Amino acid sequence: MALRKLKHEEIPRRSAEAVREGAKHPVYVLLQNIRSMWNVGAIFRTSDAVLVEKIIITGYTAVPPRKEIDKTALGATETVCWEYIADPIEAIRQLKSQGVKICALEICEGSRPHTAVTAEAFPICLVVGNEVGGIDDEVLAHCDFAIEIPQYGAKQSLNVAVSYAVAVYELVGRWRLHVERGETGVTQT
Amino acid sequence: MALRKLKHEEIPRRSAEAVREGAKHPVYVLLQNIRSMWNVGAIFRTSDAVLVEKIIITGYTAVPPRKEIDKTALGATETVCWEYIADPIEAIRQLKSQGVKICALEICEGSRPHTAVTAEAFPICLVVGNEVGGIDDEVLAHCDFAIEIPQYGAKQSLNVAVSYAVAVYELVGRWRLHVERGETGVTQT
Repeated sequence: MALRKLKHEEIPRRSAEAVREGAKHPVYVLLQNIRSMWNVGAIFRTSDAVLVEKIIITGYTAVPPRKEIDKTALGATETVCWEYIADPIEAIRQLKSQGVKICALEICEGSRPHTAVTAEAFPICLVVGNEVGGIDDEVLAHCDFAIEIPQYGAKQSLNVAVSYAVAVYELVGRWRLHVERGETGVTQT
Repeated sequence: MALRKLKHEEIPRRSAEAVREGAKHPVYVLLQNIRSMWNVGAIFRTSDAVLVEKIIITGYTAVPPRKEIDKTALGATETVCWEYIADPIEAIRQLKSQGVKICALEICEGSRPHTAVTAEAFPICLVVGNEVGGIDDEVLAHCDFAIEIPQYGAKQSLNVAVSYAVAVYELVGRWRLHVERGETGVTQT
């Protein structure tokens, strides 16, 4: 049977309001000094697709509204909850007080592969660091554990919006599987 | 124990030559009319990280060397094999004659989730279409099956380099798992 692409209007879409007000996956993302607004926008777009709870923007990372962000966010700044907290360590403190586990997306001593996150790690906040320097050491010191994306080539570097997407899709996929298998007490969104 | 980021020189790296000449994962990618050189470069960078066999560039997609591609490829055009074949259908014909399965990355009637690809689908070529129109119908007609990235938000759209990364990491992860479990006759790279 020949494949048939779905037309734009055939793809079921929820309204921005329904998405903004509706249940989310128990995943947060904290942006620490992301330099490129292209990357910030791309992270918003992916975050809409995976229904994260909230994007926490810290440090000198740009915040919406900015036309450079919307060039890649394509409207996702209207559907994803976000908050600016200047100090990432203060933001981490607030998340921890709500029981959120803090997970660095970083190549560290003892980082686990992104596929090795289990149900106990949720609710989880992925900390995503600067394009060049990664996560600052002082911020890393407040993270509970670290994950990394395995890399097999010569470069050992991925674009930050790309690594975030690979990591967050894996996390959300694993969380949904846990819920389907009844390994958590929560309801599937 | 506090997390410690690995320094640049502590991360083991293979030489560009070793990567170019060494074993790859049995995954190809075919780019059909990708408009943005940013996306082409980002796809190169991710392809280095996952060790794809080859990038097949078709249609009006730009080919290296171009400084706009290298801005996001960051040298990966030197480590990933690539070839330009103007006609994507001719490229698909060549791949099929080598036993490669052709997989559209597209929201189609009957697309399976990207997590539902099994060992029989390898060697596999992911076909990635234009940023706005997706894969052309004539090209889609030559694909063996389609996968899509599940999306839960309001937008139902992901950046093309982002969806490629999410899909290809899933494919390579599944392939490596099959190999580890001895479900294929091949050797792990």
